[in-house]
Amino acid sequence: MDEFKLIHDLFAPLASAYPGALGLKDDAALVAPRPGHEIVVTCDALVAGVHFLPDDPPDLVARKAVRVNLSDLAAMGAAPVGLILALGLPRNSSEAFVRQFAAGLALDVAEFQVPLIGGDTVATPGLFTLTITALGEVPAGAALKRSAAGPGDLVFVSGTIGDGALGLLAAQGGLEGLAPQARAFLADRYRLPQPRTRLGPALVGLAHAAMDVSDGLAQDLGHIAAASGVAIEILAAQVPLSEAARSAVGANPALLASILTGGDDYELVFTAPADRRDAVLEAGRRVGTGIAQIGRVTAGQGVSVLGEDGVLDLSKAGYRHFSEG
Amino acid sequence: MDEFKLIHDLFAPLASAYPGALGLKDDAALVAPRPGHEIVVTCDALVAGVHFLPDDPPDLVARKAVRVNLSDLAAMGAAPVGLILALGLPRNSSEAFVRQFAAGLALDVAEFQVPLIGGDTVATPGLFTLTITALGEVPAGAALKRSAAGPGDLVFVSGTIGDGALGLLAAQGGLEGLAPQARAFLADRYRLPQPRTRLGPALVGLAHAAMDVSDGLAQDLGHIAAASGVAIEILAAQVPLSEAARSAVGANPALLASILTGGDDYELVFTAPADRRDAVLEAGRRVGTGIAQIGRVTAGQGVSVLGEDGVLDLSKAGYRHFSEG
Repeated sequence: MDEFKLIHDLFAPLASAYPGALGLKDDAALVAPRPGHEIVVTCDALVAGVHFLPDDPPDLVARKAVRVNLSDLAAMGAAPVGLILALGLPRNSSEAFVRQFAAGLALDVAEFQVPLIGGDTVATPGLFTLTITALGEVPAGAALKRSAAGPGDLVFVSGTIGDGALGLLAAQGGLEGLAPQARAFLADRYRLPQPRTRLGPALVGLAHAAMDVSDGLAQDLGHIAAASGVAIEILAAQVPLSEAARSAVGANPALLASILTGGDDYELVFTAPADRRDAVLEAGRRVGTGIAQIGRVTAGQGVSVLGEDGVLDLSKAGYRHFSEG
Repeated sequence: MDEFKLIHDLFAPLASAYPGALGLKDDAALVAPRPGHEIVVTCDALVAGVHFLPDDPPDLVARKAVRVNLSDLAAMGAAPVGLILALGLPRNSSEAFVRQFAAGLALDVAEFQVPLIGGDTVATPGLFTLTITALGEVPAGAALKRSAAGPGDLVFVSGTIGDGALGLLAAQGGLEGLAPQARAFLADRYRLPQPRTRLGPALVGLAHAAMDVSDGLAQDLGHIAAASGVAIEILAAQVPLSEAARSAVGANPALLASILTGGDDYELVFTAPADRRDAVLEAGRRVGTGIAQIGRVTAGQGVSVLGEDGVLDLSKAGYRHFSEG
């Protein structure tokens, strides 16, 4: 197989809608932000055995790589503009593997209307690796930053939390007591996150600080608290859970800590002034994403998660931050 | 070693001059091109054992990764704006290795005045891998493209050609007959290319098509000829060689084919209308880079390299295109 010709043939159509991609044939791509906008750029590298299971289907791996990057753009309030893909393809990869990878990429290029605009492919003696750099655009000066939370802000989160962590358990054969469809739902949420690409831009001008929940809700709130120089207090009972996650916690209450610290949710967690509460909820309705108010920002530092009997001790929960994140 | 904290501490100063990098602490970076400019984005992935020798010092590997990307920007006529680095660091990496890598990166961030603006670090069970996505800017609509060569254009090249290919031989212990300082010069040219970051932008408005010489002079001219729908004819005797390369070819004339097809030179090869010849040479003098006229563009297709006895047959020369490039 001439895998490089095959890859070019499979990838070129993913660039055809974007003139600045120059057909993926030049040394670089050209990107002009719309007037009054600036470019937002983010990068996530995924390695087999670290960020996905070695036998995960390559189409899902491609889509997960796209989505975690789009989630970072959404966290800044940015709309997607284009993707740059660096692919480290093991030398023994089959044509079927490459085709399945490209098919997954094509699905998400279409679903999120974000073209492939450049990249590099290497036949590697090492592990399957993919690095995506995603470009987006946001009104100039209006990006949502971690450092922008202020005392008096309310704390909100999109969708449901904990499905990623429970989904990893389910995908690895855990949560045996759960109904098969609940386990499948959770595993799918882990394998194929749903980036909030419409909600992020809708929060520009409304939210103060924002992040996507990738390390874990408690850790990511900790990042916001540290960057903003504030304290954050959330109520565990108000953290929105999917029906499947509620079943899992009902059967094993200890899973609540995994939900609050587990990561891989790719929901947005953000703060906004109390007088914008209705506008925030309305923005969620407009883009079709559920939004729950889970806490508030005060003076001070650190994150407290309040349970029914006081502050929860999450220090024993597994931190997946950095070393595996 | 908490390698991720170490990396953050080492990398953060490389971002401090660029406010849009947000201290490498947010989900993404912000980039606003100057008025009237657009963003140019390129990406090159380097893998141990494929793009550099496994025992190459990590500071040189970092600098090579920066430079091959800056070379791609220069080929588009773009000035560097920022670097995004995805680092796949083997789990057993020593602190000394990480520090040496960061020191090399710091040298080139300073030398080329191009900040680190984002990235991702993964502790990998696999090979040392680094992917750089480089952003640059170019006056809107004025980027130099492979497809812009026209019949009647002259063909120029910067610096000297073939040092990369001969330098790889020297670094691997070849070219035994050459003087030690000539071998060292060539090996250094292979390990530490000199991207033409000042020449590229100086050619905007003068050159038609441009590329950097990474696959090999003949192959890269072939890319321009194919993209532009033209034929290109160059004179082997006019291809500029370093003194070391001249010595090597003098001792072994068969090396000429390696020089013309060997790659890794990271010089610029470009075409310009004949009436801009003086302006092109003056631009080279202004930025301190030698420029040689080596051929011309005609109607037709393909690349011909003329030697003293007619067209050279380069088909037997080793192509490193794609599979190792």
